[in-house]
Amino acid sequence: MEEVSYHDSINEMYEKVEEDKITNVKDRFESQEPTRCKFCSEGIRCNICSNGPCRITKNAERGVCGIDKDGMVMRNFVRINTMGTSAYTYHAKTAAKTLKATAKNETIFEIKDEEKLRDLANKFGIDTSRKKEEIALDLSDLLLEEINRDSEETSEVLSELAPETRKETWNKLGLTPGGPLHELMDVNTSVMTNVDGDYKSMANKALKMGLSTIYGSLTLLEEIQDILFGTASPHKSQVDMGILDENYVNILPNGHEPFIGAALIQVARRDEIQQKAKEAGAKGVRIIGSIETGQELMQRFETDEIFAGLTGNWISNEFVLATGAVDALVADMNCTLPTSGIYAEKYNSKIIPVNKLVNIPGVEERIEYKPKKAEEQALKIIDKAIENYRNRKNKETNIPQYKKDITTGFSPKSIKKALGGSLDPLIEHIKQNNIRGIVAMISCTTLKNGPQDEKINKLAEKLIKENILVLSAGCGNAGLQVSGLTRLDAKEKAGKKLKKVCNQLNIPPVLSFGTCTDTGRIINLVSKLSQEIGTDPTNLPVAVSAPEYMEQKATIAAIGAIAYGLYTHVSPTPPVTGSENVVSLLTEEVENLTGGKLAVGEDPEEIKKGILEHLDKKREKLGI
Amino acid sequence: MEEVSYHDSINEMYEKVEEDKITNVKDRFESQEPTRCKFCSEGIRCNICSNGPCRITKNAERGVCGIDKDGMVMRNFVRINTMGTSAYTYHAKTAAKTLKATAKNETIFEIKDEEKLRDLANKFGIDTSRKKEEIALDLSDLLLEEINRDSEETSEVLSELAPETRKETWNKLGLTPGGPLHELMDVNTSVMTNVDGDYKSMANKALKMGLSTIYGSLTLLEEIQDILFGTASPHKSQVDMGILDENYVNILPNGHEPFIGAALIQVARRDEIQQKAKEAGAKGVRIIGSIETGQELMQRFETDEIFAGLTGNWISNEFVLATGAVDALVADMNCTLPTSGIYAEKYNSKIIPVNKLVNIPGVEERIEYKPKKAEEQALKIIDKAIENYRNRKNKETNIPQYKKDITTGFSPKSIKKALGGSLDPLIEHIKQNNIRGIVAMISCTTLKNGPQDEKINKLAEKLIKENILVLSAGCGNAGLQVSGLTRLDAKEKAGKKLKKVCNQLNIPPVLSFGTCTDTGRIINLVSKLSQEIGTDPTNLPVAVSAPEYMEQKATIAAIGAIAYGLYTHVSPTPPVTGSENVVSLLTEEVENLTGGKLAVGEDPEEIKKGILEHLDKKREKLGI
Repeated sequence: MEEVSYHDSINEMYEKVEEDKITNVKDRFESQEPTRCKFCSEGIRCNICSNGPCRITKNAERGVCGIDKDGMVMRNFVRINTMGTSAYTYHAKTAAKTLKATAKNETIFEIKDEEKLRDLANKFGIDTSRKKEEIALDLSDLLLEEINRDSEETSEVLSELAPETRKETWNKLGLTPGGPLHELMDVNTSVMTNVDGDYKSMANKALKMGLSTIYGSLTLLEEIQDILFGTASPHKSQVDMGILDENYVNILPNGHEPFIGAALIQVARRDEIQQKAKEAGAKGVRIIGSIETGQELMQRFETDEIFAGLTGNWISNEFVLATGAVDALVADMNCTLPTSGIYAEKYNSKIIPVNKLVNIPGVEERIEYKPKKAEEQALKIIDKAIENYRNRKNKETNIPQYKKDITTGFSPKSIKKALGGSLDPLIEHIKQNNIRGIVAMISCTTLKNGPQDEKINKLAEKLIKENILVLSAGCGNAGLQVSGLTRLDAKEKAGKKLKKVCNQLNIPPVLSFGTCTDTGRIINLVSKLSQEIGTDPTNLPVAVSAPEYMEQKATIAAIGAIAYGLYTHVSPTPPVTGSENVVSLLTEEVENLTGGKLAVGEDPEEIKKGILEHLDKKREKLGI
Repeated sequence: MEEVSYHDSINEMYEKVEEDKITNVKDRFESQEPTRCKFCSEGIRCNICSNGPCRITKNAERGVCGIDKDGMVMRNFVRINTMGTSAYTYHAKTAAKTLKATAKNETIFEIKDEEKLRDLANKFGIDTSRKKEEIALDLSDLLLEEINRDSEETSEVLSELAPETRKETWNKLGLTPGGPLHELMDVNTSVMTNVDGDYKSMANKALKMGLSTIYGSLTLLEEIQDILFGTASPHKSQVDMGILDENYVNILPNGHEPFIGAALIQVARRDEIQQKAKEAGAKGVRIIGSIETGQELMQRFETDEIFAGLTGNWISNEFVLATGAVDALVADMNCTLPTSGIYAEKYNSKIIPVNKLVNIPGVEERIEYKPKKAEEQALKIIDKAIENYRNRKNKETNIPQYKKDITTGFSPKSIKKALGGSLDPLIEHIKQNNIRGIVAMISCTTLKNGPQDEKINKLAEKLIKENILVLSAGCGNAGLQVSGLTRLDAKEKAGKKLKKVCNQLNIPPVLSFGTCTDTGRIINLVSKLSQEIGTDPTNLPVAVSAPEYMEQKATIAAIGAIAYGLYTHVSPTPPVTGSENVVSLLTEEVENLTGGKLAVGEDPEEIKKGILEHLDKKREKLGI
């Protein structure tokens, strides 16, 4: 049997949970192997209506309704993507409401990056001669309006931020979106029985929804989080399970939304709170980043005695709980496993959902995040965690002793700063082929194509060896952090030219950029690069790769990137292989439309080759 | 082999398409039999993330993410329902925009039912001292706002129209919804991997979304269509394929939205249009209702030389095209089969999608409905149809010579009118057990549980025999119309007491009420009855049945009805049987919460028994 993970800490913990005979992601994966259903794997099955379930077979070229395999495959895939749009938009709404309440001085948060607020407001024609609070109110309303914008109208964020050449292309193709919710409604209606039976037309709608997600949901969402919690800048932190110390009250904000996590850090820094923990016999209260929430926090908050860094990504979830050292896993919007309740009971922990959408079987306790109540809610969580600590302090813990120092906190702003205030040095390095190209690795992690984080690391190593600068985001970012590729000394693994760049700019070859939510920001960085160079973004030597995609936010981000015009690698291959036409549309034909396309494939060497070929083609075309 | 349909016309046409060796719904159904996948049928499979596909088996109690079979089954089912909410809301948005443009005098339509407009506006506190156009503007804005309402707020339509006792119950249960789009976003985020793993919580969200669909989308949508096209009142019409006459230019508006269909009728009534058709050698232009669009039109427009009535429901679609007498099938929002293009080519017809969401493989031509352009678009469609007529006029047609006179057009308003201006006589008949109860049959049609419309008719016959008054809506309504149960003389098939009521009020025992969209209106009728009687709606001897549900609008309407508090029978059984817990929640436990519940079962006798038991229990409790 293959190992669970690329990381020793996880493999060690797997032994522990095996001993304890408790359900875990690896065993569940094995129990589904090797009898995966061919029809489900290839996307050629359907049971959305009562005439079904239907399958495409030699004797059945169509479902009962009459849909052919192309339509069925695309419909299934598009339905998956609607969930991603929903989730990102939900997160965006929460960010907007948090900023709004903060502007009214009703939250524990403050407007930390006023410069970014004013810059952004300027772009949207908001009057910036006023107080920051008034500006913030207008900006949050702008996002709330954008979310609700009719699909017959045009996304305001896209209008302001997308390059002109891109807007022309999208207009020509009918891909200019409105707001994400109405695009979602259009798509989710189209994928019903007997509405849209044409795979090309469904693909078009998905691309449009992808653009609405990137511009309507993702872009302002991350910018608002910067405004609230500060824009990331490079700094040291620590990762892996060894950052857990059983003698502390350990609180792990887990998921994707940083709101409660940020409130927890702020509150935990108060002396009286630390005192409370000490009275319970602990050394103090610690906030430990977990999954993407941890990533969001780690990018923006200094690592210190109170905020200890990041444990790992979603596959780590059960194993981290199994250490027995977690007092509260604070579950926001997504990526808390349904088995967490079982682990909490077994390993003396508490799961506290803090998002109205999250529910974990067996978990009764819940606190639903409201911006105005963030402080009170954070205090309540800490009390519950301290109470948990009292009960668990003399019980067994098993913390695998691995931790690593890393550099994190690269953002468009901080990259520009590192370059001396302008993107020119980066462009110059690209032109001179010191940087052969840029690959944004925005990935989850999965067991489907090998151990956790293995593909991500192998690919990243290959890319930097070819002098490709990697921006890493998503759950996969943790995979690269834990294995050390986001450290400065990882430059030793880079090709000679990239190493020189790293030395000159004092950056690692893999820039720890953030979460999957940062896709919007990465797209905007590409837009800026293209504007500086004076060419359409599709002409740049850049690509995207998700070497271990897992879920529905990943697929819509990929669709958005393709719509934007980027070469976008995704593995494992999504369930679309049942239709040659769908595969050919996504991996070839779409390039003639948007300039982007889907690349598939599981072998890191082959993935690298495809990316190199793409980057070199673009370099050649640009004459650099 | 079983017959295709309960109707001779369809069975005759099936022989024809078999001769022609063309793909058809019956053969496709057979080709999926009998090897239906057990996992798909029971809802215990999942492939929404890359860890899948997963199946629940003896060796695999959970999916890779950790979801158990209850969660998996519910998640799959809820995902189906999100499509229904999307579709109804899309329709509602189009209705609101049509009213808005009409109020600005920018469309071919007019405000036909001013009384209804003023009544409704009054309920929402809109100033009705003004001109009808100003009131209509406010009402359309109210619906557009309702559609976009945050899920943290409360549906304004529900607040104004739902009975107080219901509102209390929903508040207690956390089921009071906001607007349908934000509820959709919440639900569609919750059904992602690793968000909501708890089947009960997912069920709650679906119930909430169901209420938001009924109040936020359906209620005002139908009322607005009344305002625009007139409120239905009982009148004669004709149904079945025999209404087609090959010597006319036959245009069939097909789908669910009446907008283009209404414009077509208006325009076709102009002499110069009829003249144009005559110049092409036809006797004239005829608009023929098809599926639910036909139902919407038939309820509100008089049947005459120009508007000929209704052919049938969605299973009829291919067979109607195969007559060779259709010049244009005008496809609005849903229920046009993906094979329509194949039929159009074979049988000399044109398919013209008139909704931006609809796409039929092989069909290039399209016109996207915009309220302001309705007249121009209708004229264009007629031109295309006349052109088609020229090409097909000497070609073979095969029209099965069946047609039936029916009575249609029952609405809450017309029922009240038929009762002499008050619901009291109806209530009196219920109290005196002349009417044992009311069953709203809101159904699609399907082949899954027997020939088209067979279950619907058998059940309706059994119900009226037991002195139950039936309100019929949805595609199934056409099934009852074609077989004659909505005719006045069907009273002969009713029980003695009901027959007496029919005689006294001059109504048939099955009232042809409209489409599935009328679910909201049926709910409001129940609310009114309960208010008049002075009891909670759950105490009334009423029930809902969908004896042949097909798609995703049906399931969310059923979920909405359960949330409202009604006994709701649905067959075939939705794909939820893989989880005893889900089945028990939906068919039993939920009754202790909302008062409503799901009833399943395929046998009309058993379905009837279940309904009778329910009605009698309610009668007993009311002491009547």
